[in-house]
Amino acid sequence: MAKNEDSKMQSNIIGRRGFMLVLSSPSGAGKTTIARRLIEEENGLYMSVSATTRPRRPGEVEGKDYYFVEDETFHLMANRGEFLEHANVFDHYYATPAVPVMNALSEGRDILFDIDWQGTQQIADKSRDDLVSVFILPPSTQDLEKRLLNRAQDSAEVVAKRMSKAADEISHYREYDYILVNENVDKAISDIKAIMVAERLKRDRQVGLTDFVKELRDQI
Amino acid sequence: MAKNEDSKMQSNIIGRRGFMLVLSSPSGAGKTTIARRLIEEENGLYMSVSATTRPRRPGEVEGKDYYFVEDETFHLMANRGEFLEHANVFDHYYATPAVPVMNALSEGRDILFDIDWQGTQQIADKSRDDLVSVFILPPSTQDLEKRLLNRAQDSAEVVAKRMSKAADEISHYREYDYILVNENVDKAISDIKAIMVAERLKRDRQVGLTDFVKELRDQI
Repeated sequence: MAKNEDSKMQSNIIGRRGFMLVLSSPSGAGKTTIARRLIEEENGLYMSVSATTRPRRPGEVEGKDYYFVEDETFHLMANRGEFLEHANVFDHYYATPAVPVMNALSEGRDILFDIDWQGTQQIADKSRDDLVSVFILPPSTQDLEKRLLNRAQDSAEVVAKRMSKAADEISHYREYDYILVNENVDKAISDIKAIMVAERLKRDRQVGLTDFVKELRDQI
Repeated sequence: MAKNEDSKMQSNIIGRRGFMLVLSSPSGAGKTTIARRLIEEENGLYMSVSATTRPRRPGEVEGKDYYFVEDETFHLMANRGEFLEHANVFDHYYATPAVPVMNALSEGRDILFDIDWQGTQQIADKSRDDLVSVFILPPSTQDLEKRLLNRAQDSAEVVAKRMSKAADEISHYREYDYILVNENVDKAISDIKAIMVAERLKRDRQVGLTDFVKELRDQI
């Protein structure tokens, strides 16, 4: 599907600051598919690259899948406040370096994050104005159960853990700007694209607006 | 053009509160055309009906074009705080009665206002959370001049007055949520429709969300 070129039109006249787009949802609400298609189809939207201490797997590319760093480097960066958010997952550390993201935003690019409520809270604490958060809910409990139970080879223990995590995630919906019920993946993607168009038109994000308006007024 | 039915989908599961959509712009930026097409094409969006003390003109319908009221009734209503905003234009009074608008919002309908910055400020003072404001700018000074000078039979005095009003309007752009540069009317309309989709998905406007989430969690 061709990438959406429309985002450039208004910025031929005035520039704009990018934003951090966070999609969160309980496991199984369809977030991964939605994120993948948004990156493919939306011009100006880029996936955030995390730093991690876990070893690189065959096929993974440094700087593209992750920034692979040593434990010591990771903690040095963390202590220096260089991360927007960080988390500990299965004995390894993951984090979002702030500098590449802030550079992207100042160049008018939007960055997509696939993180949970804890990462979202950390980003909100550091840079609330740059954050656009969307919580994706399944349309029904039946749908959620179906997706959570879908991987037939998992043990009852793994399934129970996943359901508990889903319940925990759902309880944090109040911390998000937008709530989307994912009944239909094409509509969900269309809705998020609309959210992006709208957020790109927010007055606070326009750059050079003061000069443009001054020029208009001077001519009148 | 067929009306957009999509706004119903998420609200089959959870309801939503409507919002007041205000479009403002300097005269000649294309706002009237845009407003007319939005009403025609957008399901769930309705034009606000003002109360006025000016006499009804042939062809105008009570309750559709305006609520036509006596001077005394108008001032009674104003003093009782029944208006969201009011203005004095060429020796007559105009105002938006609050009750029909608030009823519409609680029924999930969105109301479109074609008012200037003064009316917008009054509405913001009374009900900021229900307000979604869009300022439409012309793409260039040449375009603005062309539109302002378009009515060949106007006197130089009328033209000067209109230009002065345009400059005044433009100086209030900082009071608006969204800024739209009207380069192309179809794109401007498409952008405002996106703003509407986004604002309808704002978490604060969802009704029954707490119950829906509780139901999801109870089942997990």
